[in-house]
Amino acid sequence: MSHSKLKSLGEKIAFLQRRCRELRIPVLVVFEGLSAAGKGTLINRLIQPMDPRGFKVSCIRDPNGEERLRPFLWRFWNRTPSADRMAIFDRSWYRTILEQEVSGELGMEGLAKAYIDIRSFERQLFDSGTLIVKFHLQVSKDEQSRRLAAIQENPSTAWRVTKEVLERHKRYDIYFPAIERMLTVTNQPEAPWTVIDADDLDAATESTMESLALRLESFITLVEMGKLKVPAPKSNEMPYFANAPKISAAKMENSLDNDAYLELLEERQSRIHELQSEAYRRRIPVVIVYEGQDAAGKGGNIRRLTQRMDPRGYEVIPVAAPNDLELAHHYLWRFWKEFPKAGHVTIFDRSWYGRVLVERIEGFCKKGDWKRAYGEINEMEENFYHFGCVLIKFWIQIDKKEQLRRFRSREESTRKRWKLNEEDWRNREKWELYEEAAQEMIDRTHTSYAPWTIIEGNCKRLARIQALETVIEAISERLEKAPEK
Amino acid sequence: MSHSKLKSLGEKIAFLQRRCRELRIPVLVVFEGLSAAGKGTLINRLIQPMDPRGFKVSCIRDPNGEERLRPFLWRFWNRTPSADRMAIFDRSWYRTILEQEVSGELGMEGLAKAYIDIRSFERQLFDSGTLIVKFHLQVSKDEQSRRLAAIQENPSTAWRVTKEVLERHKRYDIYFPAIERMLTVTNQPEAPWTVIDADDLDAATESTMESLALRLESFITLVEMGKLKVPAPKSNEMPYFANAPKISAAKMENSLDNDAYLELLEERQSRIHELQSEAYRRRIPVVIVYEGQDAAGKGGNIRRLTQRMDPRGYEVIPVAAPNDLELAHHYLWRFWKEFPKAGHVTIFDRSWYGRVLVERIEGFCKKGDWKRAYGEINEMEENFYHFGCVLIKFWIQIDKKEQLRRFRSREESTRKRWKLNEEDWRNREKWELYEEAAQEMIDRTHTSYAPWTIIEGNCKRLARIQALETVIEAISERLEKAPEK
Repeated sequence: MSHSKLKSLGEKIAFLQRRCRELRIPVLVVFEGLSAAGKGTLINRLIQPMDPRGFKVSCIRDPNGEERLRPFLWRFWNRTPSADRMAIFDRSWYRTILEQEVSGELGMEGLAKAYIDIRSFERQLFDSGTLIVKFHLQVSKDEQSRRLAAIQENPSTAWRVTKEVLERHKRYDIYFPAIERMLTVTNQPEAPWTVIDADDLDAATESTMESLALRLESFITLVEMGKLKVPAPKSNEMPYFANAPKISAAKMENSLDNDAYLELLEERQSRIHELQSEAYRRRIPVVIVYEGQDAAGKGGNIRRLTQRMDPRGYEVIPVAAPNDLELAHHYLWRFWKEFPKAGHVTIFDRSWYGRVLVERIEGFCKKGDWKRAYGEINEMEENFYHFGCVLIKFWIQIDKKEQLRRFRSREESTRKRWKLNEEDWRNREKWELYEEAAQEMIDRTHTSYAPWTIIEGNCKRLARIQALETVIEAISERLEKAPEK
Repeated sequence: MSHSKLKSLGEKIAFLQRRCRELRIPVLVVFEGLSAAGKGTLINRLIQPMDPRGFKVSCIRDPNGEERLRPFLWRFWNRTPSADRMAIFDRSWYRTILEQEVSGELGMEGLAKAYIDIRSFERQLFDSGTLIVKFHLQVSKDEQSRRLAAIQENPSTAWRVTKEVLERHKRYDIYFPAIERMLTVTNQPEAPWTVIDADDLDAATESTMESLALRLESFITLVEMGKLKVPAPKSNEMPYFANAPKISAAKMENSLDNDAYLELLEERQSRIHELQSEAYRRRIPVVIVYEGQDAAGKGGNIRRLTQRMDPRGYEVIPVAAPNDLELAHHYLWRFWKEFPKAGHVTIFDRSWYGRVLVERIEGFCKKGDWKRAYGEINEMEENFYHFGCVLIKFWIQIDKKEQLRRFRSREESTRKRWKLNEEDWRNREKWELYEEAAQEMIDRTHTSYAPWTIIEGNCKRLARIQALETVIEAISERLEKAPEK
């Protein structure tokens, strides 16, 4: 390839990259390929002309200790580009899966689940406006031999050709069917593969850069013309679970007297303490979601749940409006980040369900966004489930009169007045809208792996015991089923 | 302790915690103590009444792989509280040091360095308005025995008493002098220790909560009265290095013709490639800082520096105005986060020196803040140096006429016009202020472990070769001195 051609392609890409920043298009570029396929060289040539403010190269190795304790996509969600960035991956989520398939660590069922997770990951990013470009660099076995030998001959690079690299080189042919499957199964329209013949690195550079420029250009054009619109799913395209519990069926008059409460509380809390310990030992992650109208008693309920838990093993994540960094990412990004380590418990005081509650009702997102969210949330939770996570979701129901009573009592108490603000009164006016949205949320996300529990919240004591018992049941059930580790 | 006393203390702390949030006071609470001293129990009792939105408990174990590749304070800088949070540490930076001292891993010199680093860490946080509260829970050997036995007897907790825990229990007496030293050396007025007798956990809870309430209360009062002011250091209290290079001495007429340039470039870049590889192998981290007036040629210089480097081992961090999360932390927080893994290179395109350049000149921070920054920066860089980091700092000098020429040429070129904006013209009016601030910055931070190099930037070719050669020299020198690993 001529130097001037490379230069003009480089300048074109640099220009398109800046245009993406202006349009706030996140771009994700993946380079896959066997050892010595030339990924490093190609990436280096690609980034030279670009504005370093606009991209970030992630080099993916084997997962570290922190990463192994999370679903395998966790570290990639963490690295998804914000709206002003291009994220370039030197190997990616595909690497882990390929290596595990070839080593036999991942059976056909595991492989199928992993590819389901990957497909929804990429589709979700695309649906929120991310351009995804995936290159697979193909190198022949002979050329790979030659390159490895050259690296070994150079004393300053020889150490790179480790035993593992040579081992992989020997198994070159075994990788083939696995790579073929990867390219076929994950070649979806939202994130197509481009296969590059990398035996000649100059030619490979040219076709990679040309292909990238083309993808950037056509995506930018679509965005500029306002044609890049993912249509809102129709009602019958959205998930629906007929067996979902109904808010209207909650027995709001139920209550519990104080003596019975204190006795049950003591007993249930001590059981939770044991279960937390056992789940920790067996590395089972637990995610608990609390949703409910204002003053439903989420905070007090969470306090009773955690009172005797070991603080080293749980965390409460209060969810408020997203900050500017969070707004520049996919809306699930900030929740993925908080996924607990295997064996830990994370309790969300409000959650990703904000998308289909407050964001829907206040118009903070588009209609298509919250309609699509039901399916996206189910996918995320399935992803957690594939990792072995116990998922518990509470809707604490109170009635409108009870809320008023609690607001009034907050107004009167110096100690609790901080809990009440103007917004609470405004939300109260939309009570029916919230209740309707809550029921739709429950109907559309009440999966077998992440079912909802409606808590009867008019009596705080009863609500606390119900929550404790639901958590006990869910963790015990998983402990019975999960193989002893 | 009576239940009602505990309750009223808890409510008081919860109230003070909310007050701290309102006043944007970050609070950092440390719990240290031997195994079974009751840290978990105490922390749990402490957090029960608090608003979970306002605190975060970090449980500190042995550093993981990622963390071992960074200076030991890195993971704690990452966890410093933002202005609306209380960070509670179940063990802390002290743990690592104590264990390493007792195991003999850390000699007296290493220990002294570590305590220097810790003292400056805590003082810097205090100076920026963080309240630091440190508790050491003292438990007698007999009581520790009893508690460990009780944990072992309970089948759901027995697994916690590992071999290491029993090993440490046996060496109870050896920990004593080390703990004593820790308490003495780091009992500074900005971050005093409170020692709690933890043999009786109820009494310990009461005294801990009382002590915490008192510290919170008096700090809040000081802030409310506007009395919490760290005075700006006087000129003679600020560091000054007489041997610092002078901007005025730069030979701005020097230049390099294109043929000589291309030959040198090729040779130097290939040398950098080798050195990067060798530094990677020997796990030496490298930090390179670029500062200079607008249009000084930083971007192009960085591109030539990295052109033949392996992109898997370096990263360019462009530094712009801080986002809201960054503004809620100490100003060095965002730079600490980017410290390279041992063996990697991080290049800062603008840096923490923004504090004493743009923030000083534009009045984005108070006089005391930027005056204190020289010392704080030297401490941070010393911290990096203690970890074995090579630090290289460039000031690319151009003259005012050359800047004008470059601005004009940017205006004329479609390809480069995006590089120029209104702000650049405004900054140009303050040329002399920037140059003066730059010289003071160099004078006050030209340490032996992180010296400045003034690059003669009027000729871009010459500037690039000078930068390459400086990096080559600095890394080679360290490789010669550093023991072979």
